[in-house]
Amino acid sequence: MKAIQMVKPGSEPELREVDKPSPGPGEVLLKVTAAGACHSDDFVLNLPPEGFPYPLPLTLGHEGVGVVAELGSGVTTLTEGTAVAVYGPWGCGVCHFCSRGLENYCSNAAELQIAPPGLGAPGAMAEFMIVDDPRHLVPIGDLDPVTTVPLTDAGLTPYHAIKPSLPKLVGGTTAVVIGTGGLGHVAIQLLRHLTPSRVIALDVTPEKLDFAKEVGAHETVLSDADAVANIRKITGKDGATAVFDFVGYQPTIDTAMGAVGTMGDVTIVGLGDGQAAAKVGIWAQPYEVSVRAPYWGSRSELIEVLDLARDGALDVAVQTFGLDDGVDAYRKLAANDLRGRAVVVP
Amino acid sequence: MKAIQMVKPGSEPELREVDKPSPGPGEVLLKVTAAGACHSDDFVLNLPPEGFPYPLPLTLGHEGVGVVAELGSGVTTLTEGTAVAVYGPWGCGVCHFCSRGLENYCSNAAELQIAPPGLGAPGAMAEFMIVDDPRHLVPIGDLDPVTTVPLTDAGLTPYHAIKPSLPKLVGGTTAVVIGTGGLGHVAIQLLRHLTPSRVIALDVTPEKLDFAKEVGAHETVLSDADAVANIRKITGKDGATAVFDFVGYQPTIDTAMGAVGTMGDVTIVGLGDGQAAAKVGIWAQPYEVSVRAPYWGSRSELIEVLDLARDGALDVAVQTFGLDDGVDAYRKLAANDLRGRAVVVP
Amino acid sequence: MKAIQMVKPGSEPELREVDKPSPGPGEVLLKVTAAGACHSDDFVLNLPPEGFPYPLPLTLGHEGVGVVAELGSGVTTLTEGTAVAVYGPWGCGVCHFCSRGLENYCSNAAELQIAPPGLGAPGAMAEFMIVDDPRHLVPIGDLDPVTTVPLTDAGLTPYHAIKPSLPKLVGGTTAVVIGTGGLGHVAIQLLRHLTPSRVIALDVTPEKLDFAKEVGAHETVLSDADAVANIRKITGKDGATAVFDFVGYQPTIDTAMGAVGTMGDVTIVGLGDGQAAAKVGIWAQPYEVSVRAPYWGSRSELIEVLDLARDGALDVAVQTFGLDDGVDAYRKLAANDLRGRAVVVP
Amino acid sequence: MKAIQMVKPGSEPELREVDKPSPGPGEVLLKVTAAGACHSDDFVLNLPPEGFPYPLPLTLGHEGVGVVAELGSGVTTLTEGTAVAVYGPWGCGVCHFCSRGLENYCSNAAELQIAPPGLGAPGAMAEFMIVDDPRHLVPIGDLDPVTTVPLTDAGLTPYHAIKPSLPKLVGGTTAVVIGTGGLGHVAIQLLRHLTPSRVIALDVTPEKLDFAKEVGAHETVLSDADAVANIRKITGKDGATAVFDFVGYQPTIDTAMGAVGTMGDVTIVGLGDGQAAAKVGIWAQPYEVSVRAPYWGSRSELIEVLDLARDGALDVAVQTFGLDDGVDAYRKLAANDLRGRAVVVP
Repeated sequence: MKAIQMVKPGSEPELREVDKPSPGPGEVLLKVTAAGACHSDDFVLNLPPEGFPYPLPLTLGHEGVGVVAELGSGVTTLTEGTAVAVYGPWGCGVCHFCSRGLENYCSNAAELQIAPPGLGAPGAMAEFMIVDDPRHLVPIGDLDPVTTVPLTDAGLTPYHAIKPSLPKLVGGTTAVVIGTGGLGHVAIQLLRHLTPSRVIALDVTPEKLDFAKEVGAHETVLSDADAVANIRKITGKDGATAVFDFVGYQPTIDTAMGAVGTMGDVTIVGLGDGQAAAKVGIWAQPYEVSVRAPYWGSRSELIEVLDLARDGALDVAVQTFGLDDGVDAYRKLAANDLRGRAVVVP
Repeated sequence: MKAIQMVKPGSEPELREVDKPSPGPGEVLLKVTAAGACHSDDFVLNLPPEGFPYPLPLTLGHEGVGVVAELGSGVTTLTEGTAVAVYGPWGCGVCHFCSRGLENYCSNAAELQIAPPGLGAPGAMAEFMIVDDPRHLVPIGDLDPVTTVPLTDAGLTPYHAIKPSLPKLVGGTTAVVIGTGGLGHVAIQLLRHLTPSRVIALDVTPEKLDFAKEVGAHETVLSDADAVANIRKITGKDGATAVFDFVGYQPTIDTAMGAVGTMGDVTIVGLGDGQAAAKVGIWAQPYEVSVRAPYWGSRSELIEVLDLARDGALDVAVQTFGLDDGVDAYRKLAANDLRGRAVVVP
Repeated sequence: MKAIQMVKPGSEPELREVDKPSPGPGEVLLKVTAAGACHSDDFVLNLPPEGFPYPLPLTLGHEGVGVVAELGSGVTTLTEGTAVAVYGPWGCGVCHFCSRGLENYCSNAAELQIAPPGLGAPGAMAEFMIVDDPRHLVPIGDLDPVTTVPLTDAGLTPYHAIKPSLPKLVGGTTAVVIGTGGLGHVAIQLLRHLTPSRVIALDVTPEKLDFAKEVGAHETVLSDADAVANIRKITGKDGATAVFDFVGYQPTIDTAMGAVGTMGDVTIVGLGDGQAAAKVGIWAQPYEVSVRAPYWGSRSELIEVLDLARDGALDVAVQTFGLDDGVDAYRKLAANDLRGRAVVVP
Repeated sequence: MKAIQMVKPGSEPELREVDKPSPGPGEVLLKVTAAGACHSDDFVLNLPPEGFPYPLPLTLGHEGVGVVAELGSGVTTLTEGTAVAVYGPWGCGVCHFCSRGLENYCSNAAELQIAPPGLGAPGAMAEFMIVDDPRHLVPIGDLDPVTTVPLTDAGLTPYHAIKPSLPKLVGGTTAVVIGTGGLGHVAIQLLRHLTPSRVIALDVTPEKLDFAKEVGAHETVLSDADAVANIRKITGKDGATAVFDFVGYQPTIDTAMGAVGTMGDVTIVGLGDGQAAAKVGIWAQPYEVSVRAPYWGSRSELIEVLDLARDGALDVAVQTFGLDDGVDAYRKLAANDLRGRAVVVP
């Protein structure tokens, strides 16, 4: 079968012919119906060759949707033909984190060499893929695979980032979203759908700010040196109750810390350049601001995100490619030449 | 191998010779080192024959501890020889409840005919038992199987009942435990270890109240018609912040509702006679009292309970029996002629 | 000045001439701009004469909005001329409940003879009213007094009832509102604005169900003997995650208990006939359903409700009356002959 | 009457004769029975003269306990002769924070020039003091004023810091306390009393570590360059679930960030040098660590702390001084020459 693989660090991925896999005991074979390309793939492709974290060649794709094609022995909770989304952050299933569904924070994954599909295990950018356990699949019913597949990361990640702040986002509060790309534009929709907060979106061009308004932002502010002052013109002295930074470079993190108010939340999601950080100290920000940097999300949260999609609450911009054009999708991704999320349809 | 089985509704269980099972794909075979007998077994044994909910004969025992004897194909997160406790309330592993570890509330168990060991599936009262998935096992390290096995139900159930009330149980509050038997005497210890609340224990004899004091109750009150008045003498006008009823007959539930104060919690755990209930209405109790009746607990909570045991926080009274004497254990259980929890050691 | 007073239990209120009050130290005099009439006033008017709980005559009106007319000595956090809403459930301000803003559950109110305006203290159905402490006032800015005044009870009470259920009301869940009157129709709007849940409204006539749809209900169900079955047709086997009963008679409470699913919330708000109650027991409802009956709300919640109104999230149907027609307003209220909330504008 | 006043920035305080104050409307006059000296007083005394934040001379003392000596007009919830503790972080009482009892985060305090006693308003280091509102007092019953007074800051501040972490501090977790001085040694006692966590204490001398063990620490670690490694030897790979830094210099904050594990909390309480900060970024610490720097606590939390003291859970080391020796107390404080908290008894 065909697969898009990462072959050499620093090189672009390749379309290659590989063996069709067969499910072992407890595993599930999916016929892939959609696979999403993500900026973090690009981040990984450009990691330095020394200490490269994954075995190569590696089939890409940590966002996957497919149809159950074959059940490994012992799998009893699924039936062939069911349309499913892949929950990507695989864990051991038995540690304290996994026991709460937080497989994204599995205590044993590193030791047991468990890795997400596309980020260690063979991913979704292929005609078929193996999922190691039925608990890593969520039935999608009649949701469209193409618009659903980005939700497994670009929907789940902002949802997980936003959820802990929901109790604070009562009437009269403000939430700020920095970066209106793949994750940020979903975050805006989630905040509008789940909270009564005023949503301010930040990005670097007027076009992106127009897009932010289209997907629901109440207000937009250019992400520049005046951003904090302009946000505070809107919020007044109380500042923002929650700021979500989907960019993660030092200037956006500084904006987040400058915009947040007492007891607010700053949540850093964007990968940035790997160097940026918020400074938290007694004299550094309003009292009891909480700053954190989460990763992906839990399986129960993926169920909730898919339920939101079913209700029509989420509208993810996508651009589709065939498997043969998948390498081109990654090329466009690297060049920031995509409108919306790139989805490969095998 | 030998197994203690329920053979006929209304009759006492029997020691029988059955085939030693073999683990299928994804399953685990345990050599049982301890199995607990529970009042709910007795409750089940006496259900009416019509509509009896389980296939018979059925090996009893929903509390189990053992050593991994053989791994079914595809099981990679466990190794043979590991000592483990069985998480009993098995679910599908994939619904929204199971995704949060709340398999005790699985949405699909009934439809998929998934049942706990000893309560539908073959249980722990045997030399060996099959566990359907490694996620239903928690490693116990060097904990003693005999004192650990009751924690899988008699520890987990009160822990799950108490946990939602913990944020309310601040300094200056009172918690009431009605019934100081298998679950209640663990509840007293949990409340002492996890909260700064004053703990009042209720039971029907002075001996049981002495025992309650031994395991940590600050105060004791006879469970009679004056119980509410006597509890309120201790709490003053504010009443109790949380009341846990491990008996569940109408008089104890009435005591619970009479003793609780504004915004307090009443949690009904005891099975009672199947008819008893608390009445909740605008005029029936202090404002915003929350009343609920939970069932068993989550897998992550079992990990937490075992961690508490490891720290020496829990001391469960047990009386041990060999497998050959297991029927006698059930006889004593039915006659209320046990000091502590009956544990069968094959 | 003129005031509408309750003079005799069992009789309708009267428009009477009373002395204009003067604010003592720490008190605030309001010129009333709007006062709301509430079903609970009617409930009180019909209490039996023996043991009648309030001193008579008593100026009615526990929903009030006004303008600060005069400050008692020592009041420094307000200025004359400010438009404010009255937070009605007055407490001592210093007990553990009041310290968290939960003056509705004050531990000392009874002992200190502190009562809400209109329910013990002179209320808002007059040209002027005394508020005992500036903390019982919330500035309303340029909100319209007439549509704002019902929010102090008919907005605050459902908000307080709903807020504890918000964490459970994730995507894919269902919330049920029984009764679409003064409080219920606000509850529907709150649920739509604050949650992604599917909202089902119940009432007894097709007209009321049409109204429920107008204010936002996704689905409606007649409140009759088939209501549980009809709700469960919509929710499927999982049942409703939260049910709010704004009626509080036995049939509606039974519907609530029948419609709710595992771990769901049943919240009883309606005063009913004073006899109705939900039964909670191990065998009586799905596992771990939580049942409670709250009262009014906290001051911080009133701030949040007014902020929601400022954002245009709440649209309360009102019918206005002059002070001279206020007695007629109560007459119509008793006869269920009002479209929306009766608001008296002095 | 005599009062210890801050007269000139950079100079030590002075014992001076001032007028005995008289309570205005809504105010309360206390006869002071104990006043605590705090490191933050010393911090303030040494602020640069330019831009000094307080009017001078200023009576010191933000920790106060006394007896109600006279009630201003309009005060009805207190009686003369009642022993009370002063809740120090005074706010407006009406903003959204104050409405939840979080006066420590009042939105309006700066604008309304409301300041805590001893930090802007005349403090407790005098024979009498004025408290601006009865809600800033908590009755102490028969608690000893001398050991109680430090709880209003050195008890309340760590309690407020710890409380948000309590739900994470389940069985099997570890909490780390850096700094075992006035606040830290109370934090150790609170963690032991309120959680089942293993408590590790850090400080710079073996004597201080011995003291930490005396007040309840399970383990101690020298606060040096190996501290992270030594903490992780105890916690294993999972790291600490919560770290509380009562020092706040860069090396202790770095230790905190190095010791914490996935989803853990780092709480910075110590004032340090005003420059130190934790860095939070995607690549900087384990996933979803939450870092915050809170300030003091809420009124309801002070009630809870005093209730814990009443139960004997807190044992604060104190050294007493007369008012005439109060200046000497501050001298010893500045020289780190105190065993325990300095309490002035007028």
